[in-house]
Amino acid sequence: MMETGLRVARQLDEDWLNQLLVQLAEYGKLANGGVDRQALSAAELDARSWLIDVARELGCEVYRDAAANLFFRRPGRVAVSPVTTGSHIDTQPSGGNYDGCYGVMAGLACLKALNEARVVTERPVEVVIWTNEEGSRFAPGAMGSSTFVDPARLSDHLGAMGVDGVSFRDALADHQARFAAIPLRPDREMACFVELHIEQGPVLESRRVPLAIVRGIQGVRWYQITCHGISAHAGTTPMALRQDAMTLAREQLAIIEQAMGDTADDELRLTFGRWQVMPNAINTIPSSVRFTLDFRHPSAETLARFDAVIASLASEQVTIELLLNKAPVTFDPRINHVLKAAGNALDIAHMELLSGAFHDAMYLAEHCPTSMLFVPSHQGISHNPAEYTDPRSLAAGARTLACALTELSQSLEGVKS
Amino acid sequence: MMETGLRVARQLDEDWLNQLLVQLAEYGKLANGGVDRQALSAAELDARSWLIDVARELGCEVYRDAAANLFFRRPGRVAVSPVTTGSHIDTQPSGGNYDGCYGVMAGLACLKALNEARVVTERPVEVVIWTNEEGSRFAPGAMGSSTFVDPARLSDHLGAMGVDGVSFRDALADHQARFAAIPLRPDREMACFVELHIEQGPVLESRRVPLAIVRGIQGVRWYQITCHGISAHAGTTPMALRQDAMTLAREQLAIIEQAMGDTADDELRLTFGRWQVMPNAINTIPSSVRFTLDFRHPSAETLARFDAVIASLASEQVTIELLLNKAPVTFDPRINHVLKAAGNALDIAHMELLSGAFHDAMYLAEHCPTSMLFVPSHQGISHNPAEYTDPRSLAAGARTLACALTELSQSLEGVKS
Repeated sequence: MMETGLRVARQLDEDWLNQLLVQLAEYGKLANGGVDRQALSAAELDARSWLIDVARELGCEVYRDAAANLFFRRPGRVAVSPVTTGSHIDTQPSGGNYDGCYGVMAGLACLKALNEARVVTERPVEVVIWTNEEGSRFAPGAMGSSTFVDPARLSDHLGAMGVDGVSFRDALADHQARFAAIPLRPDREMACFVELHIEQGPVLESRRVPLAIVRGIQGVRWYQITCHGISAHAGTTPMALRQDAMTLAREQLAIIEQAMGDTADDELRLTFGRWQVMPNAINTIPSSVRFTLDFRHPSAETLARFDAVIASLASEQVTIELLLNKAPVTFDPRINHVLKAAGNALDIAHMELLSGAFHDAMYLAEHCPTSMLFVPSHQGISHNPAEYTDPRSLAAGARTLACALTELSQSLEGVKS
Repeated sequence: MMETGLRVARQLDEDWLNQLLVQLAEYGKLANGGVDRQALSAAELDARSWLIDVARELGCEVYRDAAANLFFRRPGRVAVSPVTTGSHIDTQPSGGNYDGCYGVMAGLACLKALNEARVVTERPVEVVIWTNEEGSRFAPGAMGSSTFVDPARLSDHLGAMGVDGVSFRDALADHQARFAAIPLRPDREMACFVELHIEQGPVLESRRVPLAIVRGIQGVRWYQITCHGISAHAGTTPMALRQDAMTLAREQLAIIEQAMGDTADDELRLTFGRWQVMPNAINTIPSSVRFTLDFRHPSAETLARFDAVIASLASEQVTIELLLNKAPVTFDPRINHVLKAAGNALDIAHMELLSGAFHDAMYLAEHCPTSMLFVPSHQGISHNPAEYTDPRSLAAGARTLACALTELSQSLEGVKS
């Protein structure tokens, strides 16, 4: 069981992985220790250029596609659909060095380990860099992966204007000009996809577990609720004669929390993150209060029940807008069976987790058997220069990935059930 | 009883009062029907110049003082301290036509009524225009009245910089240059002060009562409370591991409301008016929430209890700042006895009210027997072009004032007890 996978995992070069992460952090480095490497920016194109060289030194074929996704393919014994891993290397404007980057660098370390173990897999093993996952230069995020699984989406994104005034169309043209010599990926076939990522939450660290097998991604609703009152003098208006929009807003919060209280399980997430109060003066009763709800849950039923609660709030005084609606995603249990077996074989403690954040794997799950691995994020911090994962956990995740990719690529039968 | 007062009140010229209000509204008139007449601005100086002419035509002596307060004095039989009424004519940047203005114009209408009734009072009767009550050009407000009662305060205000970059010192110099020929008020003596004002709240209209005798001004506390949490990803951070500053803020609100609940009387006012949430993003748990409390009550004990509740909230996560602290003011019961008698004599329905807003009379109460009369504000609206009081109520207030001023100025004994 997993003998080849274990042999590859033992070859995983932890120092080389760390060195790759340090080198990548130079592209778009900020004085505060973080990084600003926007999708398809000069810094990201330079990083891609360097990584293409790294991949070629490992013996990879390099491909690109219409959405500027880059693929580094270590050939297998047979030229069939590859077992793919990877993530993204674009960052938030004041981002850290692990979000996305770790998944790509660990993928390259797996290819190096396969080389050093002198393993010839049946299927090709591929590392992908997805374009514009963060959505901080061009909105929405995950343009690369969503377009890969459904190329019809590309035309929706071409007109997207970057925060720097450059359109996605023009940024793609820059990429194509720079990497014109790189051939297009011949097809969109993929045997399966495994994304290794930092947790971006505090659970693994708080449980002292270095690895999570990800069951799926929570469904999400973003609502904006506007409560309409009447502004009036804070001193002259008796409480009984007020129409205070803040009081109204607090009543809505209480109704929502009470209605969802009986599903206050570990998997529920509810955040009131953005607030706009008008006229926002000390001595004036608020005339309007607008706030957002970010609600996440893995159960489509609970999400629907939440939708019903929010819909019931609507009145002349309360306006409801749905800003985002994502159904929950369940990752492939056959892939997760292999990931668990790899963790067990390597004697790495692991647990199951749901992802509360979006990832490229959310889209890949529409396309092929897909799952994810998480490693701990110190204090749950992410999208921040302080983002940190200790080297032991980085190595544990990469070894598990190496073992699993080897196993998954040893069969031409497709994913084992 | 009150025969002379009633005779004067019957002479009050309602049309002339309305005409004064309409003419005053031309100075600083806005296209939206409101007015922008900042303290000591060109528009306000022009209005003062016109009102000086009006007062002189009524036979008044005109005085000014070091804080640019203007006094129109109708001489009495004896040159003793006057019975004074008046208010202010500066406005908010998008103000209405009644706040302050009504009290000054009604005072002039009372002087005209005294003339037409051919009454010679024992004491002089005086109408004052207080400088910069609103505090919207120079902060704080009520500079004129506070400096009149305590001239030492003037030096604190001279350096105040107007929103237009002109200092209060320079604005006073402009006033002095323009009105150099007007003599300084010979002393600061005042037998008593009665200010007639719009309610700026909804109580009189909701009770269908045209007049209020004001018992006093509520004490006020302004606090700013900052709740410190830790920002984190709304999707990846379990509820139990959050330090959500909005949750913390809502807990403080609940504690405050619960603690003050048993004094939830008609006189309590509690407003959470200004909110700043950081980082204020839909999918990020708030790291800090800063909000203000405006608390008003006529009882010093209740205010002290409120202070104690707020002080008890302070912790490592909750920071408290006191922004404003005003003790409650009780108006003179002897003056209110005369005001009630005048209302009764004129058969004008009236009730007692507390003022929730600040007025110049708050400072005059430090100086001499003082009280106020209120007339209804339509829908409680003030500091707004939509500010409105119906002409019948305007006349009712002015007649009551005329009757009471006459009575108060008929005695050389000081205020009757």
